[in-house]
Amino acid sequence: MEYNDVYFMRQAIREAIKALEEDEVPVGAVVVVNKQIIARGHNTTERLNDVTAHAEMLAITSAANYLGVKYLNDCTIYITLEPCSMCAGALFWSQIGRVVYGASDEKRGFIKSGGELHPKTIKTMGIEAEVCSDLLKDFFRKKRIR
Amino acid sequence: MEYNDVYFMRQAIREAIKALEEDEVPVGAVVVVNKQIIARGHNTTERLNDVTAHAEMLAITSAANYLGVKYLNDCTIYITLEPCSMCAGALFWSQIGRVVYGASDEKRGFIKSGGELHPKTIKTMGIEAEVCSDLLKDFFRKKRIR
Repeated sequence: MEYNDVYFMRQAIREAIKALEEDEVPVGAVVVVNKQIIARGHNTTERLNDVTAHAEMLAITSAANYLGVKYLNDCTIYITLEPCSMCAGALFWSQIGRVVYGASDEKRGFIKSGGELHPKTIKTMGIEAEVCSDLLKDFFRKKRIR
Repeated sequence: MEYNDVYFMRQAIREAIKALEEDEVPVGAVVVVNKQIIARGHNTTERLNDVTAHAEMLAITSAANYLGVKYLNDCTIYITLEPCSMCAGALFWSQIGRVVYGASDEKRGFIKSGGELHPKTIKTMGIEAEVCSDLLKDFFRKKRIR
């Protein structure tokens, strides 16, 4: 087993599937240090009645809690969807080392709607983008049919 | 006692002072519905070791929890400082009715660093701005002296 970006993105996808199973918009995230997952999160905005409970917000808080420090400079976060302004802002404050995401979000992603990552943060996009995107498309299609 | 913007901003300032007393960057927030405060928050990023624990993030989560709904359309949030991109993003998702803030944040505020409020959100700024700003200036001046 090679612990590369695809491997860790698939772990984030597993988190997204957990969200899907709970009838939440399927977005997942994992935080990795030295090839080890130290935090996981999936969108729980409905269950928690809390618009701030995005996958990456929960994963950031969980990672900081695990490490006992606020800053995540040595961490990489894998997220199935491009972060929104809120989550990009949280990632900025965390000074996270690297952000890897799958699908782009043309509408609510931070590239379109504003916000920025920390200047030191390395950004990689498009890893397993189709799987990540299909999960979301299927979810919203089924919502419309209901 | 008149329950106007100055009154509620002073309540947010009381929250900021709580943060100050805990050696946190002094920012505070309250959420109001029908002239009643339903949620309070002050910055606790140091104590919680969590970059997402900004005053308004905590107040948004707390208000939604109190109301039992995710959306805060009928609420007004009073914040001592212009929200950052993260907090503006959270306020966007909450569809909050009105955002009132005190001091502007030329460096990390959402107007400069990106992000946006919901198009339906009414924005008011500059309420008790000097008091809000002085709290922050004093805090950072003392930090530099130490």
